[in-house]
Amino acid sequence: MWSWDFATAHDFRRGRRRSEFAERTIGSCRENRRWGRGNEDLRRFLVSFTDDPSPSLPFIFSFTHHFIYKNPNFPFSLLLQLFLCFEAPIGNGIILLGFEGSSRLLFRQLFEKESATYTYLLADLAHPEKPAVLVDPVDKTVDRDLSLIKDLGLKLIYAMNTHVHADHVTGTGLIKGKIPGVKSIISKASNSKADVFVEAGDKIYFGDLFLEVRSTPGHTVGCVTYVTGDGPDQPCPRMAFTGDALLIRGCGRTDFQGGSSHQLYKSVHSQIFTLPKDTLVYPAHDYRGFTVSTVGEEMLCNPRLTKDEESFKAIMENLNLPYPKMIDVAVPANMVCGLQDLIGRQTEPV
Amino acid sequence: MWSWDFATAHDFRRGRRRSEFAERTIGSCRENRRWGRGNEDLRRFLVSFTDDPSPSLPFIFSFTHHFIYKNPNFPFSLLLQLFLCFEAPIGNGIILLGFEGSSRLLFRQLFEKESATYTYLLADLAHPEKPAVLVDPVDKTVDRDLSLIKDLGLKLIYAMNTHVHADHVTGTGLIKGKIPGVKSIISKASNSKADVFVEAGDKIYFGDLFLEVRSTPGHTVGCVTYVTGDGPDQPCPRMAFTGDALLIRGCGRTDFQGGSSHQLYKSVHSQIFTLPKDTLVYPAHDYRGFTVSTVGEEMLCNPRLTKDEESFKAIMENLNLPYPKMIDVAVPANMVCGLQDLIGRQTEPV
Repeated sequence: MWSWDFATAHDFRRGRRRSEFAERTIGSCRENRRWGRGNEDLRRFLVSFTDDPSPSLPFIFSFTHHFIYKNPNFPFSLLLQLFLCFEAPIGNGIILLGFEGSSRLLFRQLFEKESATYTYLLADLAHPEKPAVLVDPVDKTVDRDLSLIKDLGLKLIYAMNTHVHADHVTGTGLIKGKIPGVKSIISKASNSKADVFVEAGDKIYFGDLFLEVRSTPGHTVGCVTYVTGDGPDQPCPRMAFTGDALLIRGCGRTDFQGGSSHQLYKSVHSQIFTLPKDTLVYPAHDYRGFTVSTVGEEMLCNPRLTKDEESFKAIMENLNLPYPKMIDVAVPANMVCGLQDLIGRQTEPV
Repeated sequence: MWSWDFATAHDFRRGRRRSEFAERTIGSCRENRRWGRGNEDLRRFLVSFTDDPSPSLPFIFSFTHHFIYKNPNFPFSLLLQLFLCFEAPIGNGIILLGFEGSSRLLFRQLFEKESATYTYLLADLAHPEKPAVLVDPVDKTVDRDLSLIKDLGLKLIYAMNTHVHADHVTGTGLIKGKIPGVKSIISKASNSKADVFVEAGDKIYFGDLFLEVRSTPGHTVGCVTYVTGDGPDQPCPRMAFTGDALLIRGCGRTDFQGGSSHQLYKSVHSQIFTLPKDTLVYPAHDYRGFTVSTVGEEMLCNPRLTKDEESFKAIMENLNLPYPKMIDVAVPANMVCGLQDLIGRQTEPV
């Protein structure tokens, strides 16, 4: 991407009038709908600039610093292209490196206290439609979540689950009933109903951002971890929505729904602990009030998963946890997106 | 800061050998203890670079992009200085603009479910001592908070309250007992005990980051909002720890502890709604599972504070809330940093 930006700007700079290039770039940005806020400020600046053959470097510094600081959502690669069309700053050396990804993401963590479940809302604010996804919505908090989505002017496109939950009923089906067009997502391995089935390596796009699917079975057979994309346009640091595979200083139980401590150990070590250490870990639950951790932190401090596999298995076999009180209601319901009463109808929404 | 960076580098570039400047800058960074992670990678790169009079631009691009992406905490102004000492990239135009502030902050939101209280942990990771502050710690979760601080290798320097809480006992006194050297902070207007009293305009430094104090009375007479600093070295967007002055889609009650709906309305409108709209709002409580909002969002969607003052007052006068069950225990205790049993001893810790 950078080399393209540079080459394009470089070519234009040689062959065309600067003002023409500036206008052309602005036009092309508008067409591509990647033009963030602050465009008018920049345009005014550029137009005044175009007629000045040798703007002073301190001025450019000061403007750019101020501009980026006040417009954190502005795509830096555009700023780069636009600056590159002016010979004076080029001669004195202006190239901007930036991170579109980190500020275009809208991110909200939401808590359902009865089952201590976290629901996550992610949206691409730089996309004109502000497409959004909900990860692990809970039936009881669907109205709260949809009201927030409305307040923020987002367009929900996917309601997705990390796995078939045993402790609460998913909000997926209810959401589909309330907002037609929303598609439900779950892993193929979960053997549940959904509009879209995903497996390891799949990418789920919302606008220009995406979540990557990693297969992390062990708590259930169909558990997946959704990880924000790797790349300069994606959020940095990365964020991993680990479901019950990895909890903060803990992990999901492995004694039902096809669980396996051997498989969970392998999943976490091969699929989560191999992510960059600063990757943010956002689990499906926390019972002690933690909201987030990092891969590096769990690799050092997780009391279960820092052990060797045999010790881990021994821990998991001796947890002596009670039978989950919601499991007989939640699991059958969650196999059909939370709408147990609709089993047999075989119609939408699933 | 930018002009200094540039001028210094420019002078050195003219008068000295590039390698000398590189070494000197590295040395000065070490002395100033502002040298983040990734230094060895960069050093190796620079040393190899010094002996190459004309490194290729695509290589610099590719390296820089990769380097910054993998080392988000590295102070960009240093990278700028270091690159500036090489004539080749200068000639071809390399200047890096970056944001130290956004990645040097470690931030954690912690929840205490009984009183639905949020405690906030902030630390300056770029400072060698990783100094940290806790905002609104709760007595019941002190052990959790201190264990997290230990896991993360932080040095807690301040335990601060936004106000004298009526619904839970502060953890400040307990923390001071467990970690000698930690200082308690509260507003002067609260008439409580603490090591440090703050008022509007004060800055509370932890490393090179700071919180700015804004006076936001109305829920209690001594309520303050702590806001992260305004400046290129500080987190962007800004973050406001509003206590009970502004809650997500709500606000604190105004019927006890010197509360006043007139004053609360004025506080929120003059001290919080005047912040940039993307400022993150982190309240002391949430009862519906929201974790964060923004100033812009509350200015548009807060069902109480979007009204005119008279309507707001009418709402606040007709809330008919029950007498807070913890108030008779919590308020006297919180006047002395949570250590009611120590009243009369008049000794540390307060």
